[in-house]
Amino acid sequence: MALIVQKYGGTSVGSPERIKNVAKRVARWKARGHDVVVVVSAMSGETNRLIALAKDIQAHPDPRELDVMVSTGEQVTIALLSMALIEIGLKARSYTGGQVKILTDNAHTKARIVSIDEERMRADLKAGCVVVVAGFQGIDADGNITTLGRGGSDTTGVALAAALKADECQIYTDVDGVYTTDPRIVPEARRLKTITFEEMLEMASLGSKVLQIRSVEFAGKYKVRLRVLSSFEDEGEGTLITFEEDKDMEKAVISGIAFNRDEAKITVLGVPDRPGIAYQILGPIGDANIDVDMIVQNVGHDGLTDFSFTVHRNDYQKALNVLKPVVTHTKARGIQSGDKIAKVSVVGVGMRSHAGIASTMFRTLAEEGINIEMISTSEIKVSVVIDEKYTELAVRVLHKAFALDQAAQ
Amino acid sequence: MALIVQKYGGTSVGSPERIKNVAKRVARWKARGHDVVVVVSAMSGETNRLIALAKDIQAHPDPRELDVMVSTGEQVTIALLSMALIEIGLKARSYTGGQVKILTDNAHTKARIVSIDEERMRADLKAGCVVVVAGFQGIDADGNITTLGRGGSDTTGVALAAALKADECQIYTDVDGVYTTDPRIVPEARRLKTITFEEMLEMASLGSKVLQIRSVEFAGKYKVRLRVLSSFEDEGEGTLITFEEDKDMEKAVISGIAFNRDEAKITVLGVPDRPGIAYQILGPIGDANIDVDMIVQNVGHDGLTDFSFTVHRNDYQKALNVLKPVVTHTKARGIQSGDKIAKVSVVGVGMRSHAGIASTMFRTLAEEGINIEMISTSEIKVSVVIDEKYTELAVRVLHKAFALDQAAQ
Repeated sequence: MALIVQKYGGTSVGSPERIKNVAKRVARWKARGHDVVVVVSAMSGETNRLIALAKDIQAHPDPRELDVMVSTGEQVTIALLSMALIEIGLKARSYTGGQVKILTDNAHTKARIVSIDEERMRADLKAGCVVVVAGFQGIDADGNITTLGRGGSDTTGVALAAALKADECQIYTDVDGVYTTDPRIVPEARRLKTITFEEMLEMASLGSKVLQIRSVEFAGKYKVRLRVLSSFEDEGEGTLITFEEDKDMEKAVISGIAFNRDEAKITVLGVPDRPGIAYQILGPIGDANIDVDMIVQNVGHDGLTDFSFTVHRNDYQKALNVLKPVVTHTKARGIQSGDKIAKVSVVGVGMRSHAGIASTMFRTLAEEGINIEMISTSEIKVSVVIDEKYTELAVRVLHKAFALDQAAQ
Repeated sequence: MALIVQKYGGTSVGSPERIKNVAKRVARWKARGHDVVVVVSAMSGETNRLIALAKDIQAHPDPRELDVMVSTGEQVTIALLSMALIEIGLKARSYTGGQVKILTDNAHTKARIVSIDEERMRADLKAGCVVVVAGFQGIDADGNITTLGRGGSDTTGVALAAALKADECQIYTDVDGVYTTDPRIVPEARRLKTITFEEMLEMASLGSKVLQIRSVEFAGKYKVRLRVLSSFEDEGEGTLITFEEDKDMEKAVISGIAFNRDEAKITVLGVPDRPGIAYQILGPIGDANIDVDMIVQNVGHDGLTDFSFTVHRNDYQKALNVLKPVVTHTKARGIQSGDKIAKVSVVGVGMRSHAGIASTMFRTLAEEGINIEMISTSEIKVSVVIDEKYTELAVRVLHKAFALDQAAQ
């Protein structure tokens, strides 16, 4: 007998029929003797409907009031799922984020969880209840309703699992696990039985949209056993996210190929190669609330160097505007930039102990005539920036080059 | 400078455009220097949509979960109205029933307000904010979301006005006040500038659907100055509900003609005329949660009497079933009943000091050949039960007989 936290996304609860199916799945886990806490998102489309309604009133809705509004989406789902559970004979109680006291900071529309009061949930579980909690939302110290930002229901699930010391947090979604790459691009892509937390983090931040990155960080921090499963398959083991390399398992060197077409690259040319120059360039970018992903600076020549970084395409123009005075100020030679790029990454904890991953990657791309514009590496990934139009080709040839289509895992 | 509580119903906030109009009206009151607290209902149609969704899951939705669900309707409106107020330059903050702590008992779907914590609202008002509160909802002592039942937003408005000791509670609706009778039946019906609390109570319970009866009781109990106004007219004084007869005002004897086609009548024939018989009949009816409206028992003959009462038509069959064993048990002669009836009432505090109201009423109906099946009187009203088909005719001739179409008020 275990304590399981299950999270169901908007598609999984997108209609009364699907909500009834979720109830049946929960009932199967209860029948096996497990305690179950369920976290749900708003029914698919509902959050967008509410935001559109808000925008009919205010082009840029007041963040506090927007949170009051969109948090109703999950509130409807918790009630419906509880009804569905009660209807098939289970005991169930729903709670909003505020009711189980998911305390957050006061950063409306992108709040962070500070603490969770699990007492009430424990009492309900002890009484044999299924506890149904609204994902994505909380309250701040003043009792204002907050939301965690898009995808925040995953974070709620993991945070509840951490607070309750649950045996497993199961994230049900419309895919049955984490794949070696996007099967729409590479039909031979395989589902991974396990993936390490670090790999998942790289896969998520690099554009595999299975789990919200913050929830993975949270799971890592609190050592929550996390599993991604499909809510449309009756039985399946999905992909387990682990926190240590399993020494016993014959693990492939590379776990997957991630890619991302959301970024733009900016290079400040011919900046003085002196201490503090990185801060002079990225300080104003950070002040403008623009997140930077890759940062590349090579050795300089004649006291000058080129400084490159990538930002989200939505921030591209804003970043260029911010940099104009910086260029003047630092006496840089100018700016070179472009938003028709893709970032492709080879990810795997195995590469720590295997040389040659980067060279295999570069050779493979070179054989297809794909030019590499930027390179960035970490212990468990190698990322390159290439022309956007080569994305699919690059992903396919790399998937094959690392034998991801056949590796037994 | 006054403190005004304004309540807007579902039709008044039924679209983004209408919500913007409400914001403009609130702004006009603010511009005159008043503090304003606004209570809103769910957008028209929303509560029904949510209930239908719940019924897709459970034919008889769990009451606790139904409250969690339907309370989202008002939550959406408070956010939208606050946005609309902020958009036109006002400071505004929305609160759910739970957030301003409208504490209720735990009778889900028909809870009663126990207390309101007005501290937070006072602080906001002091800071120049318009406070926007969700009607119809509260929380119980355990933090569960409750609702007050249909029309409960009126009650919320009055309860907030009482808690804040507001100068006036304004109920905005789709009619511009209380009329001498339904203008759809009598085009000459006039809007009343004032109506006493007792009259309003009779008018409301007798079928004038302007205000929820519980809110009127609440207003009477806490001496809240209550005004009914149209949200579709820019300036209008509506109808003020007063708590004393205004001696200075030349007041008509009769204020209005109310009517109701929602009831059914039941007569238990030939029951023994002895102490306790009323309880023997109505006890089981009350135990079955059936509300009784009129009760009539005349003097008996030969130790037997007839006992009549009316119930809501929805409870008609249930009441008849409940009575079957009662008839056997009391050795009554049988039951006579019908649901094709109407109750028509002449209401006015003036009749306390004027004889002849009842006889005028009976004569007027007799002249039209309308048979009176039951009669019930109070200090300020005379009600008769007649055949349903004569409803409009009876209302028209009574309106004319009491000169309601021309009385200067």
